[in-house]
Amino acid sequence: MTAIDLPFSLDEYQGRLARTRAEMAVRGLDALFVTDPSNQAWLTGYDGWSFYVHQGVIVLPDADPIWWGRNQDTNGAVRTVWMGNDRVRGYADNFVQSTERHPMQDLGRHLADLGLQTARIGVEADNYYFSAKAMQSLQETLPNAVFPDATALVNWQRGIKSDAEIAFMRKAAAISEKVVDGLLERVEPGVPKNEVVAEIYRDAIRGVDGAWGDYPAIVPLLPSGSDAAAPHLTWDGRPFATGEATFFEISGCYRRYHAPLCRTLFLGDPPDFLKRAEAALAEGLEAGLDVARAGNRACDIANALAAPLERAGIERGARCGYPIGLSYPPDWGERTVSLRAEDETVLEPGMTFHFMPGLWMQDWGLEITESILIRDEGPAETFCNRPRKMFVKS
Amino acid sequence: MTAIDLPFSLDEYQGRLARTRAEMAVRGLDALFVTDPSNQAWLTGYDGWSFYVHQGVIVLPDADPIWWGRNQDTNGAVRTVWMGNDRVRGYADNFVQSTERHPMQDLGRHLADLGLQTARIGVEADNYYFSAKAMQSLQETLPNAVFPDATALVNWQRGIKSDAEIAFMRKAAAISEKVVDGLLERVEPGVPKNEVVAEIYRDAIRGVDGAWGDYPAIVPLLPSGSDAAAPHLTWDGRPFATGEATFFEISGCYRRYHAPLCRTLFLGDPPDFLKRAEAALAEGLEAGLDVARAGNRACDIANALAAPLERAGIERGARCGYPIGLSYPPDWGERTVSLRAEDETVLEPGMTFHFMPGLWMQDWGLEITESILIRDEGPAETFCNRPRKMFVKS
Repeated sequence: MTAIDLPFSLDEYQGRLARTRAEMAVRGLDALFVTDPSNQAWLTGYDGWSFYVHQGVIVLPDADPIWWGRNQDTNGAVRTVWMGNDRVRGYADNFVQSTERHPMQDLGRHLADLGLQTARIGVEADNYYFSAKAMQSLQETLPNAVFPDATALVNWQRGIKSDAEIAFMRKAAAISEKVVDGLLERVEPGVPKNEVVAEIYRDAIRGVDGAWGDYPAIVPLLPSGSDAAAPHLTWDGRPFATGEATFFEISGCYRRYHAPLCRTLFLGDPPDFLKRAEAALAEGLEAGLDVARAGNRACDIANALAAPLERAGIERGARCGYPIGLSYPPDWGERTVSLRAEDETVLEPGMTFHFMPGLWMQDWGLEITESILIRDEGPAETFCNRPRKMFVKS
Repeated sequence: MTAIDLPFSLDEYQGRLARTRAEMAVRGLDALFVTDPSNQAWLTGYDGWSFYVHQGVIVLPDADPIWWGRNQDTNGAVRTVWMGNDRVRGYADNFVQSTERHPMQDLGRHLADLGLQTARIGVEADNYYFSAKAMQSLQETLPNAVFPDATALVNWQRGIKSDAEIAFMRKAAAISEKVVDGLLERVEPGVPKNEVVAEIYRDAIRGVDGAWGDYPAIVPLLPSGSDAAAPHLTWDGRPFATGEATFFEISGCYRRYHAPLCRTLFLGDPPDFLKRAEAALAEGLEAGLDVARAGNRACDIANALAAPLERAGIERGARCGYPIGLSYPPDWGERTVSLRAEDETVLEPGMTFHFMPGLWMQDWGLEITESILIRDEGPAETFCNRPRKMFVKS
């Protein structure tokens, strides 16, 4: 077997576990069942595209975590997690997509073996990978246990990044810059979109010196013209056209860490309303970055952004950012803080966000964004270093 | 707004809806709430990477479906679905990842407006995108409604492909062939894995004549040597090495339709045990393809495969295939039939499967697979046409 190539030191994993256990203690949890793939990886190192079947990590207060999943994936687990092989457990393949058996019945047996029949076991009730049926099956298997909602318990521990994580994000950012540089060069009227996306992927996966490219948790998004009103359209084979703005929402990825960077490119001469929006957005970004300081709050960023946009008559309904770092599909956000008026989370050094004030209006759109790091002092640092503007090719 | 470029005719969507409604009637459902992104796209045409927030389609017995999601994503919905704009509904952004509000409270209000307060509303209880918390929130919002489990109700309607769908899969298959041809040429000892993956993506997204490449629902999987024991490892920056087999699990994708094709490449002189496994697997594939006929059962394929493998002393614990077609991450399988001994589903013309007898042993692995179409008569047709063997570069 190839030697395990853990992304982080054992000390770092122990620190993560300690923070998680401390919060479990606060909430009176005897155990925590973690299904979010990002949380599994952050706690144990587990890495593999196996989250399309039920799997997870059992976190215990006084023993190493247990990775549990499909039998065939235990082979991947023993090759990626820091725990001993005895902390990896598998279930038989005929639990997979069965109408008679549910994998949670197997998990329940493991939990019972651990003496947790009547325990308080936290679950990530609002995670993609913990279905309504999983909850029901687990409750039926262990009728005397209780399953308090611990959605985002681990995610919140991930908020402040270590130096090692920030180093990974700097590598991801270097890849993001390379991708944006490449697409700005290649997009021309008449070039099919998928041809540009092919090169985006090639650049992203080749990576940069010292950083091979991993797959980002979201695919490139690049709607044009009136379609740029829609934030989450992907691409097709139609050509780029003169007279249209296209926003490019991309992220480099290094060992599952992200640093998204979005820029907009206009082919031709942009109309005045877009130039005015660009100016207001650039001013809002500057203002937001300036208040993105330790001690300020998430809402301060949102409010600083909103002022110049409102003066320009642009009303945004959406939050303007979210924490980033380690992630698996379908989202590169961390799903804790939201940069919006109602979120009073205090910013701390080492927090990282995608400051993402996308404008998605009735029939146009514009994205200029930055991945940022809250510093000990002063305004936020941007991970990438590219002009904060709408690019134009006349 | 760009004209809507529906992948299929309105007639085809109406046919899909009719089949879905017929099954809803059988189960006595007044409505069905569909969260599986593949089912949403299959029923309505909706396409976008927005499934990281709660969204879905309300299927009604006597009125067009309603697409429901985040406000900003209604812009994508009106650009991709066949229904009128009045059948697209959005919820406010402060429902997103809120600890105070849940999007299902908004959905509940829409269902109540439809007069469904005391209805039987089917839900996809074991889908990735319908969380335990979503179920709880929906039940609390509509305490007098009941929510029977309708997991895979729509998926089962997708089993038999139309000619138009099969045409899409043939395009995906042509992309798969191109990707496999390219990687077999490029992989050499010393070449970093991510460099090969960069070209895999480039080939896949560039596509082939008449078929631009869409993103596959699973990223390339390509573990080497003893790591090939693990089915779901992705890649890193380490070089390919002499003396190792690497399996490549990939799929071309055309407008969300897949045709996976896996091949194994050995660098150097393969050991006898691998050659014996290859021979047994090739024989098993032939035997399986021969019984993959209309009127036979899913288990017949599994049993035909198992016999030569068992004679070679190879015991497989996993199912050997699943239906394929339209899909979104995290899985390109259709999650209905499983090709395994206990599944007696009768094969029908137009069904499509990934016949996927991966061998993942203690410290080695081998994948040679085919995407297949059940025909009116005779054995299955393979979508791709590449030698069914372990490739070797000495």
